Parts: sequence; C-alpha cells; structure tokens
Amino acid sequence: MGAIITLTTDFGLADGYVAAMKGVILSINPDACLVDISHEIKPGRHVGLAAGSFVLSTTYGYFPKGTVHLAVIDPGVGTDRRAIILKTPHGLFVAPDNGLLASVLSDASPQSVTSGALGADVEAVAITNRRYWRSPVSATFHGRDIFAPVAAWLSLGTPMAEFGERISSIVVPSQALTQRRPDGSLTGRIIHIDHFGNLVTSIRQNELPEGPISVLVGGRTIAGLRRTYAEGQGLIALIGSSGYLEIAVNGGRAVELTGAEVGDEVVVAASPIKEERPRPRARLAA
Amino acid sequence: MGAIITLTTDFGLADGYVAAMKGVILSINPDACLVDISHEIKPGRHVGLAAGSFVLSTTYGYFPKGTVHLAVIDPGVGTDRRAIILKTPHGLFVAPDNGLLASVLSDASPQSVTSGALGADVEAVAITNRRYWRSPVSATFHGRDIFAPVAAWLSLGTPMAEFGERISSIVVPSQALTQRRPDGSLTGRIIHIDHFGNLVTSIRQNELPEGPISVLVGGRTIAGLRRTYAEGQGLIALIGSSGYLEIAVNGGRAVELTGAEVGDEVVVAASPIKEERPRPRARLAA
Amino acid sequence: MGAIITLTTDFGLADGYVAAMKGVILSINPDACLVDISHEIKPGRHVGLAAGSFVLSTTYGYFPKGTVHLAVIDPGVGTDRRAIILKTPHGLFVAPDNGLLASVLSDASPQSVTSGALGADVEAVAITNRRYWRSPVSATFHGRDIFAPVAAWLSLGTPMAEFGERISSIVVPSQALTQRRPDGSLTGRIIHIDHFGNLVTSIRQNELPEGPISVLVGGRTIAGLRRTYAEGQGLIALIGSSGYLEIAVNGGRAVELTGAEVGDEVVVAASPIKEERPRPRARLAA
Repeated sequence: MGAIITLTTDFGLADGYVAAMKGVILSINPDACLVDISHEIKPGRHVGLAAGSFVLSTTYGYFPKGTVHLAVIDPGVGTDRRAIILKTPHGLFVAPDNGLLASVLSDASPQSVTSGALGADVEAVAITNRRYWRSPVSATFHGRDIFAPVAAWLSLGTPMAEFGERISSIVVPSQALTQRRPDGSLTGRIIHIDHFGNLVTSIRQNELPEGPISVLVGGRTIAGLRRTYAEGQGLIALIGSSGYLEIAVNGGRAVELTGAEVGDEVVVAASPIKEERPRPRARLAA
Repeated sequence: MGAIITLTTDFGLADGYVAAMKGVILSINPDACLVDISHEIKPGRHVGLAAGSFVLSTTYGYFPKGTVHLAVIDPGVGTDRRAIILKTPHGLFVAPDNGLLASVLSDASPQSVTSGALGADVEAVAITNRRYWRSPVSATFHGRDIFAPVAAWLSLGTPMAEFGERISSIVVPSQALTQRRPDGSLTGRIIHIDHFGNLVTSIRQNELPEGPISVLVGGRTIAGLRRTYAEGQGLIALIGSSGYLEIAVNGGRAVELTGAEVGDEVVVAASPIKEERPRPRARLAA
Repeated sequence: MGAIITLTTDFGLADGYVAAMKGVILSINPDACLVDISHEIKPGRHVGLAAGSFVLSTTYGYFPKGTVHLAVIDPGVGTDRRAIILKTPHGLFVAPDNGLLASVLSDASPQSVTSGALGADVEAVAITNRRYWRSPVSATFHGRDIFAPVAAWLSLGTPMAEFGERISSIVVPSQALTQRRPDGSLTGRIIHIDHFGNLVTSIRQNELPEGPISVLVGGRTIAGLRRTYAEGQGLIALIGSSGYLEIAVNGGRAVELTGAEVGDEVVVAASPIKEERPRPRARLAA
C-alpha cells in the first residue's frame, strides 16, 4: 500500500469537488491510499475554521506518522492568503494559512498557541513553486489545482524545500479560546456540535481544576463529570473521547435541549457556580 | 490488495469519528482495504439496532468470504454489554453484543432467530484480551479503542481465540419481528426507510403466502405485488433487491404519502384484507 | 494499485446500496481502487439526469485515462431502457442509456450534442451478455446486478465487445440547454446548485460574448464577471472551476437570496440588459 493521504474540507460530498481532488492525486500517485476525514465542516469563515481545526486535531494523531493530511477550508481562496506545508513529528499538513492548522501547531509547539511561531521539530514552507501545481490554476478551486497536486507529490517523497521558501511562523487566532479567570474558573467556547448533538467545548481535560467542578452553559448549571453518555439524567458533562469537555444528554441531544450554538460561552468552576442571571429553566435543570 | 474491512456505524461522516477508526486500523494493517457500508444509521437505541442489523444483512453477502465486518452501533458503550467477534461461513463480524448481529446469525443459523444460540459452522468469542486494544480505553469511544484495533488484527490473520473466551450464544431480540397469525396472514414491521422514501418491512419473500396477496399499511390497502418501482400508480408493494417486502410510490416517496415510521405494523394477507378501521384516504389509495 | 473505478449514483450513503455494489466489484476485482464521485445526486427523473451529467462532466477529466466510471442514476430500472458502455479517449463509462452520458459524449464528439451519434474515437456497446451479470438479476437494482459486475470485469481488461453488440448512437437530450438568440445574447439554464448555494448554469466560458456582459437571473441583473467568490457584494457572476458560468454571493448563498431552482432560465447579454419585467428587488440588487 502506498502513502496515506487524508482529506478534510467543507466541500460536502454531493458536488464532485472532492472527487476531482482525488482524481488529481491518483493521476500523480496511483498508489496513494485516500482516507476522508470530513467534508461536512460547516461552511463559513469563523465556524468553519474552528470546527475544521477541531476535527483535524481529534483525528490526525490516530494515523501513522508521515501521513499527508490535506485540509482545504478556504474562504479566502483566490485572495493573497498563503498556502503552506507544515511538518510536525506526526505528519505533513497541506492547507491554506488561515488558522486551520492552529491546533496541529499547538500540539507540536504548545508555546506557539497565540504567536504562531514554529517551535523545535516543526518546519513550514509557503507553497509558491508552480511546477507542482496544475495549470491553469482556477481562481476558485485551489484545492484541486494547488493543494491536491502538492499533497500527491509530497506523498511520493518530494522534499518540502522543493515547494517554496521556508517560513518561521503560521497564522493562528490571536486569542486562545479558553481563558483562566482570576478566581481560577475557566471560560471556554463551544467549538463543535457533533452528529449526536453533543456540545464539544474548547476546554481540555488537563486544564480542568482539581476536585469537584460545575459547568455553566446557556443559563444552566451542571454539577460534576460523568464517565459515559449512558450515565445521569438531563444535561451531563463529561470528557469526550478526544480529551475535550463535552455537554451531552443521556439518550437525547444537548443541542436541542440547550439551544446552544458554536461560539457560545461555557464556564467551569471548581466550586458550585452562582448563576449570574438565574432563570427558572436553569433551576429546573440544575 | 490486503484484506477487506467494512465499517457500519451511526457516527455520521461530519465529525471525524469514523476517520479516527480508519487511522487506527491503517496503523495496524497498512494494507487493509476499507469500505464504508453506512455511517448514517439513525442514532437511537431501538431504531438504530433494527436499521443497522438490516443494512448489514443486505450488504455483507456481496463481499468476498473472509471479509471483516466492523459494526459499531453502541448505545451502551461504557456499560457492561459485551464486545464480540462472530464468525460465520461468510465472514468475521466485530460488534457490541446488543442484537446488531441478529440478522447475521439468523442467516447462518436460522434456528437461532430467537435463542441466539450458535449453530454449527458458527463461532463467537467475547473480546476481553486488552493486548489488542488501544490504551488507555476511552469510556465513550470503544469503536476507536477496542473494535477498530481488534478488526485490524483479525484482518492480519490473528486467530479468534487470541481475543477472548469462546461463547455459545449472542444477544438477539426476544421476539421475531414477523409473526404468522392463525388465519395464515403475516404481521411484520417497517424496519427501514430508505433514501428514496421506500418503506422496507421485516417480511421476507420466502415467507409470503402463495397466490394473490393484499398489504395493509397505515390504514391503506395495496392489492398485489409489482415487479419494479416504475409500475403502477400511488402506493405499490414489491419485493426489494434484498428480498424484503417494500412499500413504494412510482415517481414519489411512500414515507411522505403514508406518514409511516420505522416500527409501524404491516399486514400481509392471502385474500383481500377487510380494513379494520376504514378511512376515506385509505379508500382513495386502494 | 489496480484499476480505478469511480462511482456516481443517486443512492445516498445511508442504505448500503453503494456498499453492495462495492462488494460485488471487489469480489470480481480485489485490486480495484474505488473512488466515490457523488451519491447525493437528487433523485428524480429530470433533475437527477441533468445534475448527474454535470457532476460527472466536471470530475472524470481529472482521473487517469482508462479509468472506469460507473454511473447509475436510473429512474427507468427494470424497463426496456438499454444499459451501455461508452468508450472515449478519456475513459470507459458504464451507465443506463438515458442521457446521463450526454456531457461525456459532447466532450468527445462536440458535433453529437443533439444527435447522440458517436464521433471518431468513440465507441459504445449495449450490455446484453448475461455471462457478466449476477444471477438472478433483481428487477430494481441493476446497479448491483449488472452495472457493478460489468465495471469490475471491464477494469480487469475484458474487451468491450464481450459485453454486447456495438451501437452507433446513445440517448441525449433532444435540445441543448444553452441557446444563442438572434441578438447575440445567450439563454441557458441552472443545471446544478452546489454545496455552497452557488447556481451553476449550462453556459460555458467559451460561449460567452466578448467584452462586458450582463447576467439576468430571477428578475435580477448582474453586471460583469468577478474572478473569485470573495469579490463584490450581493449577487455576483463568475466562471466556476469547471468552466461554467455561476451565480454566487460573497459570504452568502445565492440559492436562498434568489429563490432560484434547477431548470430556471439565465440570460447573458453583451450589453446591459433591459429587464423585461422590472421589479423593485431587482433594482436593489443591480
């Protein structure tokens, strides 16, 4: 079996955009093993990047080291945003330089979360060598004409330096989604709503305070953590399989119960939280 | 080409859950040929298992013997339900022991429909040997941490006995969905609504009475069987490509026309059925 | 890696229909490399064929020459419509003979757009040799029982003549979707609405008049062409990545803004268009 190339986009699977990319890849590397990560990242500038970064961060680590991960969520296609290759000890990532790889860089260089500077063991190039692109390049579909062929050539062992100049930092969001407050509580955001209606937050297991906690979301308070989705009643909080704090409902869907949306605030406190604006429905759920 | 591993889940394709399982499999067996059966089985305890069992039963038979079929519809993940490997003359099945493999066992051991006892040529083990699991095991994602690696090792030829103790029966629903009434008519259930809005029932072609039949569904009566979806007008009944009785509409969608849902009763009689509660709309459709 | 076989259907991915076809293919050619083009072509007689023909036409060209393209959008399954293999310099196409391959034939034999007659370098056979079919053949699922095994045997190098008699023309729509008016303007149709809500028209880049143009759609007038989706405000017109004229909204969805549907008329004029029935909303958008 040839090299593995994964694909993450917001193109959906109905239109043939993803298939065109796969045709381009297989025309260059007929032995590539193509694996879809997701093509249903919600289109849109902010949500798409946060969700895409999350989905990528919870999957790439399970693939063999050296896998090429192609990620194209690219609202700025055709503008002057850079296209990049990022190499970490875990794999090679080909993507627009718009923050989509922030979580990958953060895993490899935790100190780079808000600077985007590459740490040790991490390299990147700006993709500028047209020799590895399709010609002509469409102004609207760099996934097919730039990213796909570059990923295919990378998977054949073409050295990174062939594709363009080395760069020393990449674009990352200027502020971390999870913040620690002076009183020790954490403020995070809902970054993804999954197929089961679970609310995935930006708060990671290793950031949680020790001891009992309370979680506040959408005016409701949840006491303590459960271990599985089959425990408790009503809203529950637990650590999901990717190490992030999640809000769920045993046998139901948290997204409908709470009306929450991607971007909404979530607070975690070490002691029971006094609700800032108590509401009847919050009391019922508490 | 390496061994084939098929995947059937209710995870959807938007979140990366399926991709994480594929990454785990390819890390163990880089030559595996991965084929998706469905990841859109409707989440939920009862419907998911009936639909999952049906979709699996209508596809595995078309794959080469010896294929490994990985099926993870697992509302009880993290509780004490068993994880099992079932081996029939047709293939190897890796799944939670919650009824999902009932149709597979029924094909191989028709006498086991309601007992779950393994017949001749059928073997099973409870998956208990942690040596073949990822570590640590997430409480919420055994698909990635137990089922995927076990399927990958199985596809490499690891003997079944390596994974755990032999067992003599598996979980199956306590009552068959299709029942024969004293008057010779059959009572079945809608077990699946397909992409075209067709209602797939639990009633198989070889169970139908001989001669002309009538089908009663949702207060409507359908006379006789058609051969293709392009025949007849309004509601029609026919034997679908998997050998099950289906209700369809030529050029339309039976699910919207009838308002039927998975679990609804369907009756087949050898003679024209007298409707129990006649309704005007039923007369129009008859 | 073995031969590539692509799959395009309107079966969806929830039911296992596509997986059954893949199982049949892999049972015949275990080395086949299977690539999904789309399984979400909208079911229905007219829309499905136009959309399927479009999606196929915008993808097959990116695959290596000699790829086998299997396309099953087949509202007439079980009736007397023919099943065919079409061979062009670019690939082998296996499909029902219902117009689905019109765009492929048009690419290879532009003079055949409305006649369906095969030009030089193009061959076709009617699939009639049951030796290469599954047995028995379901009346409702030729994708699994006829098209899939034929594609698999083709991918192994079985000569076309083995599958049936040579034919000299295939079914195509009797009228081209894009027409040139006496005044030089073009009248086309919306043939596809993509994942991003963009309206793809039947009008190709090389058909456009020279110099500045106006585009009229749904009572709105759009002046000029943009180069990328990130330019302009409100409705914009541009040439999409497949060379077709598209209507889009920078940061929004044209389908919701216009209420347009597949089949709606689109007009392109070399000079600014006088709206035939001016409406307030059209003025606002101009």
